[in-house]
Amino acid sequence: MSTPASPLRTLLDRRKSGYSLEAPFYTDPAIFEQDIKHIFGQHWIYVGPEVMVPEEGDFVTIEIGRTSVLIVRSDDMQVNAFHNVCRHRGSRLCTEHKGSVGNLVCPYHQWTYNLEGTLLFAEHMGESFNRSGHNLKPVHVRNIAGLIFICLAENPPKDIEDLAAAMTPYIAPHRISDCKIATQIDIIEDCNWKLTMENNRECYHCRGNHPELTISLYEYGFGYAPTPENCEGIDQYNQILEQRHQQWEAMGLPCRELDHLDDCITGFRTQRLPLDRAGQSQTMNAKVASSKLLADFQQADLGALSFWTQPNSWHHFMSDHIVTFTVLPISAEKTMVRTTWLVHKDAVEGRDYNLKDLTAVWVATNAQDRALVERSQQGIRSDAYEPGPYSPFTEMLVEKFCNWYTNRLSALAE
Amino acid sequence: MSTPASPLRTLLDRRKSGYSLEAPFYTDPAIFEQDIKHIFGQHWIYVGPEVMVPEEGDFVTIEIGRTSVLIVRSDDMQVNAFHNVCRHRGSRLCTEHKGSVGNLVCPYHQWTYNLEGTLLFAEHMGESFNRSGHNLKPVHVRNIAGLIFICLAENPPKDIEDLAAAMTPYIAPHRISDCKIATQIDIIEDCNWKLTMENNRECYHCRGNHPELTISLYEYGFGYAPTPENCEGIDQYNQILEQRHQQWEAMGLPCRELDHLDDCITGFRTQRLPLDRAGQSQTMNAKVASSKLLADFQQADLGALSFWTQPNSWHHFMSDHIVTFTVLPISAEKTMVRTTWLVHKDAVEGRDYNLKDLTAVWVATNAQDRALVERSQQGIRSDAYEPGPYSPFTEMLVEKFCNWYTNRLSALAE
Amino acid sequence: MSTPASPLRTLLDRRKSGYSLEAPFYTDPAIFEQDIKHIFGQHWIYVGPEVMVPEEGDFVTIEIGRTSVLIVRSDDMQVNAFHNVCRHRGSRLCTEHKGSVGNLVCPYHQWTYNLEGTLLFAEHMGESFNRSGHNLKPVHVRNIAGLIFICLAENPPKDIEDLAAAMTPYIAPHRISDCKIATQIDIIEDCNWKLTMENNRECYHCRGNHPELTISLYEYGFGYAPTPENCEGIDQYNQILEQRHQQWEAMGLPCRELDHLDDCITGFRTQRLPLDRAGQSQTMNAKVASSKLLADFQQADLGALSFWTQPNSWHHFMSDHIVTFTVLPISAEKTMVRTTWLVHKDAVEGRDYNLKDLTAVWVATNAQDRALVERSQQGIRSDAYEPGPYSPFTEMLVEKFCNWYTNRLSALAE
Repeated sequence: MSTPASPLRTLLDRRKSGYSLEAPFYTDPAIFEQDIKHIFGQHWIYVGPEVMVPEEGDFVTIEIGRTSVLIVRSDDMQVNAFHNVCRHRGSRLCTEHKGSVGNLVCPYHQWTYNLEGTLLFAEHMGESFNRSGHNLKPVHVRNIAGLIFICLAENPPKDIEDLAAAMTPYIAPHRISDCKIATQIDIIEDCNWKLTMENNRECYHCRGNHPELTISLYEYGFGYAPTPENCEGIDQYNQILEQRHQQWEAMGLPCRELDHLDDCITGFRTQRLPLDRAGQSQTMNAKVASSKLLADFQQADLGALSFWTQPNSWHHFMSDHIVTFTVLPISAEKTMVRTTWLVHKDAVEGRDYNLKDLTAVWVATNAQDRALVERSQQGIRSDAYEPGPYSPFTEMLVEKFCNWYTNRLSALAE
Repeated sequence: MSTPASPLRTLLDRRKSGYSLEAPFYTDPAIFEQDIKHIFGQHWIYVGPEVMVPEEGDFVTIEIGRTSVLIVRSDDMQVNAFHNVCRHRGSRLCTEHKGSVGNLVCPYHQWTYNLEGTLLFAEHMGESFNRSGHNLKPVHVRNIAGLIFICLAENPPKDIEDLAAAMTPYIAPHRISDCKIATQIDIIEDCNWKLTMENNRECYHCRGNHPELTISLYEYGFGYAPTPENCEGIDQYNQILEQRHQQWEAMGLPCRELDHLDDCITGFRTQRLPLDRAGQSQTMNAKVASSKLLADFQQADLGALSFWTQPNSWHHFMSDHIVTFTVLPISAEKTMVRTTWLVHKDAVEGRDYNLKDLTAVWVATNAQDRALVERSQQGIRSDAYEPGPYSPFTEMLVEKFCNWYTNRLSALAE
Repeated sequence: MSTPASPLRTLLDRRKSGYSLEAPFYTDPAIFEQDIKHIFGQHWIYVGPEVMVPEEGDFVTIEIGRTSVLIVRSDDMQVNAFHNVCRHRGSRLCTEHKGSVGNLVCPYHQWTYNLEGTLLFAEHMGESFNRSGHNLKPVHVRNIAGLIFICLAENPPKDIEDLAAAMTPYIAPHRISDCKIATQIDIIEDCNWKLTMENNRECYHCRGNHPELTISLYEYGFGYAPTPENCEGIDQYNQILEQRHQQWEAMGLPCRELDHLDDCITGFRTQRLPLDRAGQSQTMNAKVASSKLLADFQQADLGALSFWTQPNSWHHFMSDHIVTFTVLPISAEKTMVRTTWLVHKDAVEGRDYNLKDLTAVWVATNAQDRALVERSQQGIRSDAYEPGPYSPFTEMLVEKFCNWYTNRLSALAE
């Protein structure tokens, strides 16, 4: 439907700093193919917490554009990843989104692979058949303190190690391996994946749109233009921030902001921020949703550790639960957002927590965000759309997302 | 899905006069883009009667392809039009098809515009932000005796003034500004917009397909090949026509045919024709559907004043009600037809009129036409389709539509 | 959605013998257009048994891609075929899939053609109209022992006569003209038509997927790698085969394999094979489903005569019923499979047969095959797919299908 776009290189070269991207980046199927190939095909992609495959033989499938990846726990408790494509005639091996298997058996002609991807058995192929040449195609996996990243490239970016070294001290205290998935909800948004990401990277829209989320959020934590009216509030907030950071750091919980959103190939950002009101968790009353705290936490008011990665994830770690988000592109104007809520593996539903209270804030927030990004997609499809200016006070992380995206595409695209 | 088309210029140059267009004009997404850009983007487009926004702050949104336009009544009672795209990050401003507002507030970050499109307020943008550079993008509006035309071009065709001068005496006596919308019905047709228009431009198909419409229509009014069998009927009809025209002209109601369908940039045609049987209105018994007549009419049998415009509208004005049609393209093979029924603003539903009787003829006729044009679209998609001959007696206005379309595209397309 | 493909010629030239085709052959809309133009547009396409139009005036419509063809029985009992497109403005003439008519009347403006496609009547076209220049466009038809083949090309392949000469002795004894359609079921598969065909050309997948079909099938009839374990079973099967062939040939039923799947323009293959267990028919108990045997058969255990054609059909003829399949492409990733069950025209439902038992095996098998080919389509869309090796023992006919397809496309495509 889109009008013939200028060549990608021209569009990248004329990108105006501080402004949203030109329309073809959000609408053109040809640029979407470039995103799939270069952004999602050459970078580390967050796909979920390792406890999505808790036991040997457990698998999940992840769809990135037209590509399906199998994440499977092998018998030695490793998390492996393979292309979900039989080497015989290309059938999908696993069609369910999750399950548990002994071996991976293709439903078409029963070619059988083990959990390391080795082809064990293929009937009627004759003596001269080279079995070892037909193992499943592997996909790189990196488990960072319980968060699973995959990379479809042959040679993945090496700076995932920098991210791992920097982030492990922040994340590890929340002990993902001792968590379980309380629930997971997928929503499909009728927009380009970059609008989903840009929406995540600012809270300028929060006050007008997210009544549930802003119960526990300090507005000032997400950037405000200083005015005579709000300078007192900003000062107060900064005092609280400093105070809590000292307290939490003393408990072994790193808090300080790290920001490598646009100066690394594997871009990321983190920060532990205090919560408002009861101060414990992102819930409707800002109190913990699960009475069984994570790890060995003795205290409920640990704020929220936020962690953002380029190109496709964000996460909030609290004392009682973790919410983790992965964004997976489907087509130029369709995107999947998967939200996963983690609680302590020994927490009992109905006793220690209930799903409604646990998920209330983000179920509501996701629905609101979906409406916002779909309205943006519709507006951007108009010939009248032109890039608009980002707020220098509240949309700096959106700008960094666009910087990272255009820099990476410039570096990789033909 | 369509096979690669010949270049548009080649197709235009080899258009065979008196024959339907070649298939790519009806199926090729690339030619649809040209239609959107040059036909709908550079000409005056009828969008509805001014009473669709009767009060200050009332708005409707109009979708032309991917472009959304806001029509809004400002506080000085002007009808304004703007692109329905926020100048910040491109969100649609109004997502409802109609409503009423004080200011135009973007739902995303609450950028606020007044009803003249001026940006009043944008939070967190800093001192250096050039607010006056971010007003809504205006769209040209022309109100002709109560019919609203818009033009997306920077420099709209000037001959809209010729249309206004010629048509105002015909339309003004029906006093649209004293009307209200009784009801409005949108239907989606799975065909190219030009098939919808061509279907409107002939009544060769009426006898075989429109039993309700032909109750009040004189067949001869729409062109017939003269034969020994029908020459008497044609003569009789011409006598009636002459008689009624004299009578109506004496009452100040212009009747004579004006035809500028293919000799103007802003092409149009009009004619007041007598109705058959009771002779009052396009209803199932040819009597008025509303007992409260329009304007200061004292007499119900005023025939039907028809008005056709290129590229996208037609209208029937009767003594008791007005039916007005606008055709808005969605994609190469999808088109929206909006039908609006107007009655006197003081007519009371249930007392002076009821919706079922008011709409019966055109609801049935629209459904029949939809089936016809969708069947045409399906046939034209076949490789076996080739342009066929128009009847020189009943399809002259179809030919004029195709002339106008190909001439305009030839003049404007690259 | 597909990534820009290599030029078709490059893809054809580098096709690796013994391996499945590269992904664009299954996913690229541009190659689909070539398939429609050259494969379905230039070869003989099986469309159904002649008894689908048993009486004068009976018609069916067949959709091949965007092209609709009318198959109609004329008053002299000939089966004719025409493009289902009115020569006036391109409307579909018949929108129903089947029916019965006196003449072919276009619903739009009532242009009227007789059952030989001659334009009889077109109102309002004037004296100078050349009526004889506007007959329906004919399509070639060949009736081979009751099976209707059509060809859209101006000059159809002549070797249909070789197929007719070779196959008539095999098919004629089952007397299709004395049959009636018991039922016909269409299913839509979300895959390229070639995956549907390839799936039909091997029974490697049968044991793992078709519990109903394998009741009556001898596995060894469809190719097995010889192993020490199965050599005895293969020998036994070959003895049965030889014995039954002698018996059936003596009854005037040809049995021997003919295979011209990849050495003719009009490729085909046939073979009469014994059935397992009760040995009579492809049913859930391997006994006849209709007690009224076809033709003048006195004996129920006549095995199954199978007949396969390139590019789009297969058929099983038994003593009591015939099942015939036609594959019609809709788009690059959507295909229609029409299955038709024929019984003796004098068989009475409820007395001689019931639909549930007659159709049980192939309704189940079609549903299973649909799942298999749709999974293949999904896997092949992944960038990780690469052509995989065919079994030299069980997938030789798949290889022959791919040979025929690539040879024909090489010969015809620009």
